Amino acid sequence: MDLDLARQIAQEADTKIVLFVMDGLGGLPHPQTGLTELETARTPNLDALARESACGFTLPVGIGVTPGSGPGHLSLFGYDPLKFNIGRGALEAVGIDFDLRPQDIAARGNFCTVDGGGAISDRRAGRISNERCAELCAKLRGIRLDGAELFVEPVREHRFVLVLRPDGRASARGDGLSDAVGDTDPQREGAQPLEPRATSPEGEATARLVARFVEEAKRLLASPSTGSGRAEPANMLLLRGFARRPDWPSMSDVFKLRPAAVAHYPMYRGLAKLVGMEALPVGPAIGDSIATVRENWGRFDYFFVHYKYTDTAGEDGDFDRKVAKLEEVDAAVPSLLELGPDVLMVAGDHSTPAIMAAHSWHPVPFMMRAPWTRSDACNAFNEVALQKGSLGTFPAMEALALALAHAGRLTKYGA
Amino acid sequence: MDLDLARQIAQEADTKIVLFVMDGLGGLPHPQTGLTELETARTPNLDALARESACGFTLPVGIGVTPGSGPGHLSLFGYDPLKFNIGRGALEAVGIDFDLRPQDIAARGNFCTVDGGGAISDRRAGRISNERCAELCAKLRGIRLDGAELFVEPVREHRFVLVLRPDGRASARGDGLSDAVGDTDPQREGAQPLEPRATSPEGEATARLVARFVEEAKRLLASPSTGSGRAEPANMLLLRGFARRPDWPSMSDVFKLRPAAVAHYPMYRGLAKLVGMEALPVGPAIGDSIATVRENWGRFDYFFVHYKYTDTAGEDGDFDRKVAKLEEVDAAVPSLLELGPDVLMVAGDHSTPAIMAAHSWHPVPFMMRAPWTRSDACNAFNEVALQKGSLGTFPAMEALALALAHAGRLTKYGA
Repeated sequence: MDLDLARQIAQEADTKIVLFVMDGLGGLPHPQTGLTELETARTPNLDALARESACGFTLPVGIGVTPGSGPGHLSLFGYDPLKFNIGRGALEAVGIDFDLRPQDIAARGNFCTVDGGGAISDRRAGRISNERCAELCAKLRGIRLDGAELFVEPVREHRFVLVLRPDGRASARGDGLSDAVGDTDPQREGAQPLEPRATSPEGEATARLVARFVEEAKRLLASPSTGSGRAEPANMLLLRGFARRPDWPSMSDVFKLRPAAVAHYPMYRGLAKLVGMEALPVGPAIGDSIATVRENWGRFDYFFVHYKYTDTAGEDGDFDRKVAKLEEVDAAVPSLLELGPDVLMVAGDHSTPAIMAAHSWHPVPFMMRAPWTRSDACNAFNEVALQKGSLGTFPAMEALALALAHAGRLTKYGA
Repeated sequence: MDLDLARQIAQEADTKIVLFVMDGLGGLPHPQTGLTELETARTPNLDALARESACGFTLPVGIGVTPGSGPGHLSLFGYDPLKFNIGRGALEAVGIDFDLRPQDIAARGNFCTVDGGGAISDRRAGRISNERCAELCAKLRGIRLDGAELFVEPVREHRFVLVLRPDGRASARGDGLSDAVGDTDPQREGAQPLEPRATSPEGEATARLVARFVEEAKRLLASPSTGSGRAEPANMLLLRGFARRPDWPSMSDVFKLRPAAVAHYPMYRGLAKLVGMEALPVGPAIGDSIATVRENWGRFDYFFVHYKYTDTAGEDGDFDRKVAKLEEVDAAVPSLLELGPDVLMVAGDHSTPAIMAAHSWHPVPFMMRAPWTRSDACNAFNEVALQKGSLGTFPAMEALALALAHAGRLTKYGA
């Protein structure tokens, strides 16, 4: 739904909506069995739910378009993924609970390994430990730049976030920073890291600051910080996705919801916060998620619950593990239903067929149990049975409107 | 897919896409049998292909909208037919391999018969022969206009193309031509030909040139050129669709394809060239088309193959002949498959139900055999069986995006 229309017709109500997202949900048939992951998995609870639900498929961005995690989730949150773009750096920063401010510029960083000639031999520096990443970030925080305050925050393994914030003097002079800076990550091994270059004239001052940071970082990373004498694998860094925090309308403003995110992974927490959700602290297991929803049931009326492991298995090309993870979700369905949501959506942000070992463009299985649904002939939750669903294949960004309607949260349009 | 998005995410790949278009493909049930042309035809090869394909229907322009040949094809080529408009004259000129330049104005012409009072008695002058048409065009080329070079090119039977090009002196004065000139063809018999009138002030000079041309042509056509003494049926002409050549982004720019058109009829060649396809020389038979694809297989990675005769039969209201033409295509399917396309789309530009004897607005049968398709319950290629397809009814302009995705030619959108 167009956000202006939503603003006009959304209303508060005493109803609760749960959006349960299995990341990378949809799949493709295994060549030996002809059955998809969902068809293979034993999912009696999901199948029973499908019999009580309106069923179909969501199209995250458009026909043929494979979404990244950002567009895949934003559309389920009701935001047009072609209008609401976010740079990778801003997403990553918000996702680690960094308080990214409107004047800040964030970039995603990788520690990497370069050889004696300066060429990248490992873009991930052998996936160093979280602890080592934190140590290196602490070291880089010592760098001083004229014009910007510097934040270097660890994410996981070799990944970190760099944030530049105009310092007091720069702000006093009215010197802002710009996100018009190109990646230094050439995205392939064997190449040299790129120089940070302005992608438009207003990026030039910021590009110089970044160049100065990279130069200092290179020097600091090259000098061994341990007495072990072993070569440090993380002897260089790569930056990409320079971006500002987007300033988007919140779900509470637009949809009149009090929304909460129950997501363990930083990126999904970050996405949820960008649309005004409160990201609740939660452990990694599905039981943790459901307990968190239960504990916060009274405070919110919309819960986004994220389950990551279906995607991870799919991306690893592990058909059997994806099947097992679907069965894990199935086992948790009764406790999800016990919460008593008025509207329960079971959805995915995109398909990740295990046989492709990657995100894909295929429409994503979807069902919604709610009052006022029509019956359909879909009697199981899988890619074949859902073709008999009453919802057909529809844009994922319309799923929230559908849920709001069934939750009594949309008034009539027009007299 | 939006062309800006396509530009952003399309990539080259070592895969080949074939779009096989049966013109006027879709039909309606015969009142005596209750079966459509496709249901009536014996099409074992198309049916087998449907069982291996993702199936559905394309909507060329929109619900209820009957497309002409231009919009019907442009949408299959990935171009929004409501944004990419082309005047009939420009289409006709490009379709006869005329080198239409950006400053030219083209119109479609008919030789016609007028009675002694000047009223049109036959809009097609008895469908004169191609030879006679060429003779008359040669005669009209002798007309001289002040300000424009003149081209009069035969098309088929009574049809020709008129092109005005600013002459050297007009160009030196900076006097361009305009396509803001109304039709002289009233599109009905019994009426007088219309005066060429400017449809906006900038068309006035061009309308005067056209009026001068029509006056001279009328005089030349009225004087018999043969000694037979028989009345010349083509004693007047009608002009319509004054238009400039549109300047559109090419499929290679937008979609990163090397596209070829295998079409015998001028109009479809013309359409294909407007989106940057190379129109290969090809004979009229379906065997000619497949041989041409085979011979050029290495040079291109996208082939648009056009089959005209299903539409001709439909427009003639000849149900049985349309059935026979569908069976002719069916017999050619194995040789199409032997080429080994990674993605094969079988589609139509619009429906032409024989019982309507005209183009119609009905969604058009579509199937795509490709890697990574989901299975569906569609087991035959006809308007009833396709309703069980996994693709549903979708905009024809998305068909190319779907094909590109399955051909590994679209990267992920968003982080």
